Amino acid sequence: MEGLTKIADLGKPRVVIVGGGFGGLQLAKELADAPVQVVLIDKHNYHAFQPLLYQVGTAGLNADSIISPFRKILNEQENFFFRLADVQSIDATAQVVETSIGLLRFDYLVLATGTTSNYFGDKQMEENSISLKSVGDAIELRNTLLSNFEQALEVGDSKQLNSLLDFVIVGGGPTGVEMAGALSELRAHVFPRDYPELDLKQMDIHLVQSGPVLLKGMSTEASEHALKYLKDMDVQVWLDNRVTSYDGYNVALKSGEKLVARTLIWAAGVTGAPVAGLDPAALLKSNRYQVNEFNQVAGYDNVFAIGDIAQMATAAYPEGHPQVAQPALQQGRLLGENIKRLLNKQPMHPFVYADKGTMATIGRHRAVGDIILFGKQYHITGWLGWLGWSFVHIMALVSFRNRIAVFFAWAWNYLTQDKGMRYIIGKPKAPLTEHAVEVKPIV
Amino acid sequence: MEGLTKIADLGKPRVVIVGGGFGGLQLAKELADAPVQVVLIDKHNYHAFQPLLYQVGTAGLNADSIISPFRKILNEQENFFFRLADVQSIDATAQVVETSIGLLRFDYLVLATGTTSNYFGDKQMEENSISLKSVGDAIELRNTLLSNFEQALEVGDSKQLNSLLDFVIVGGGPTGVEMAGALSELRAHVFPRDYPELDLKQMDIHLVQSGPVLLKGMSTEASEHALKYLKDMDVQVWLDNRVTSYDGYNVALKSGEKLVARTLIWAAGVTGAPVAGLDPAALLKSNRYQVNEFNQVAGYDNVFAIGDIAQMATAAYPEGHPQVAQPALQQGRLLGENIKRLLNKQPMHPFVYADKGTMATIGRHRAVGDIILFGKQYHITGWLGWLGWSFVHIMALVSFRNRIAVFFAWAWNYLTQDKGMRYIIGKPKAPLTEHAVEVKPIV
Repeated sequence: MEGLTKIADLGKPRVVIVGGGFGGLQLAKELADAPVQVVLIDKHNYHAFQPLLYQVGTAGLNADSIISPFRKILNEQENFFFRLADVQSIDATAQVVETSIGLLRFDYLVLATGTTSNYFGDKQMEENSISLKSVGDAIELRNTLLSNFEQALEVGDSKQLNSLLDFVIVGGGPTGVEMAGALSELRAHVFPRDYPELDLKQMDIHLVQSGPVLLKGMSTEASEHALKYLKDMDVQVWLDNRVTSYDGYNVALKSGEKLVARTLIWAAGVTGAPVAGLDPAALLKSNRYQVNEFNQVAGYDNVFAIGDIAQMATAAYPEGHPQVAQPALQQGRLLGENIKRLLNKQPMHPFVYADKGTMATIGRHRAVGDIILFGKQYHITGWLGWLGWSFVHIMALVSFRNRIAVFFAWAWNYLTQDKGMRYIIGKPKAPLTEHAVEVKPIV
Repeated sequence: MEGLTKIADLGKPRVVIVGGGFGGLQLAKELADAPVQVVLIDKHNYHAFQPLLYQVGTAGLNADSIISPFRKILNEQENFFFRLADVQSIDATAQVVETSIGLLRFDYLVLATGTTSNYFGDKQMEENSISLKSVGDAIELRNTLLSNFEQALEVGDSKQLNSLLDFVIVGGGPTGVEMAGALSELRAHVFPRDYPELDLKQMDIHLVQSGPVLLKGMSTEASEHALKYLKDMDVQVWLDNRVTSYDGYNVALKSGEKLVARTLIWAAGVTGAPVAGLDPAALLKSNRYQVNEFNQVAGYDNVFAIGDIAQMATAAYPEGHPQVAQPALQQGRLLGENIKRLLNKQPMHPFVYADKGTMATIGRHRAVGDIILFGKQYHITGWLGWLGWSFVHIMALVSFRNRIAVFFAWAWNYLTQDKGMRYIIGKPKAPLTEHAVEVKPIV
């Protein structure tokens, strides 16, 4: 066929995995001993550990310690092939995906493309806010917040000063709550040492949540503890409120208040990131693919979706599983097994989600967790929750090297109350032409 | 005065240091206990350890492990002020520097602006080659070489393939030699595991040196050992040769040979990076400021230049000191002392360079060093040279945290023969429109 990629045809069934997040990577590993060829396609050459991106964005970790190159993770797996490419569309009848580097034939196709930020159609918000979906986003946030503080040193006008020092976080889920806590720790422990010239009482951190509670979906105890922790740490929490418009400078709240902030972090929701070409009927309102208990996309036998992009309606989860790491990991693992069963002409096993609970950390010794052990939910908090959260996150990192790096960075941060990664490398978010920071005139 | 920066006037003599490399940073530290205000201006918010940039460029170290934010290094020094800015010109009569954030009055001005790559007027070379003067350059090199290898997997045409896999390094000084060695180690140990689909015999590394020896200025033994090591490691060394033109793809050598390479690393020489406004007579042909034995710029009492940007003609060094870390560090240290002496109305001490020798590492267990101990030069090589080089470089890093990070990375590299930082984050060098890599057509 014309335009095929140069990936060798091994004469074995080929499993093409689109996206190397938690689900896609787990599946690729699971197929190590299967008589198949595994081809992973991703637009980055590394796996990123998304739950810690907010720490990269707030100078607590360097990007390298939460990412691992796919080729390194899997370079001893002989049936593994990687391509750095964008997937453009799927032709399920011809069993081919079109990519930026050519056509790729498949026997089994697995979509593990995850989600993208949902701005609910607000283009201005999308342009002016920073989301936390990729390493690039996190580095942009770090560059922006540090550049703003450097600029603040030379600004006289008090409204301009507020716009540089204040932060608005939209969304009271784990990302928003953890981000607010991390910024608060920078304000309390790091910036006073770095910027003795600034009055840090002027740095305000706003967390805006549309519903009546933070950490929706977690226990009432967890929500209440998180709220208390954030208030203790001087975060201004706006419940039952919403940002109705943002132009990169002016923030309008539904309740009528007006704020100014050059940094608005958008953590208010996600939508699926589907690929063109499949039957539109298989794509639900959430932009997730409707899948059955084997993760088969509705209407297809050999096209699967796993993780955040898959919506499997069950009695316990009528709207699909939560879009977090565990369902993706568990579906990746099971699908690996099921593909091997298919090849052996055995029936596949249905997916049953083993919920291990949810955790969020707000700061040093301050975390909340709803842990499920032997089917029973326990609520942990404070020092224990914080230690548990740290342990779980370190163990979940994909490489030994990442674990050592994060452990070392956290131990250092803990002992020194310092966050060492305060570098501006690359560009901050493009500055506005309107509301430009007044720079001193050169006479 | 209109347009002054907002840096508080402490009512003490103000020392303005332009540039936070080895010399500028050392001077700032040295003035910790002096009755002066220290203002450091740099266009980055961190100090970078330049001698290891080549390892960042070749995925052996991450950028964070060789840089430290100025505010962190010096945040316990009460008389220290930092500004992230560009310096635009100097008015020595008014005792003012013009910067991108306003005017800055000085009592003592110290120029420590270092050097920039010297392309000898070849604009095409400047546009198409990669130099190694900043962290941004090193990351661009890493992104480019990894992107080229990813692209190479899908290229059929053999000339295009060579252009992606081949490297040309111009300049046989320490940077060129160390870079050639590092690329050779990637070829021998890392890329075979990462790219089993590629025939790495096709990856050629060319090192082009205009003179008859490598590491000019070092001992004959050092030069010869370096040459032998590189030949053992299959680097093609071109002595007495020169790249006469490079368009980003075609490389023409003076000897008539033609090569193709998308990556040409320019390590062939530097020129001073002066600031506008001083008496042109003080600026020598090398673009370095002519300074006396106290590092005073010719014609000025309170304007100093230290490090690479200063040219102090002495009997031993009629063309000025070598443009490496040691003279900068030693001049920074002495100038700190001399400024304190000036304030006490004591005579300044003249600078005497204590040469500790020169080292270069080519690879694992392969390094050369001319060490000077008690006035006598010793030549070390092989395993001992390599260990010495590693020790000296770790100890020279500015922060404990950097030392731990580099030590850990090197120990890991040593044990696993791996270079873990194989990430493409940010952009590779902009691809050419001419000689574009043929991408498979999407049918």
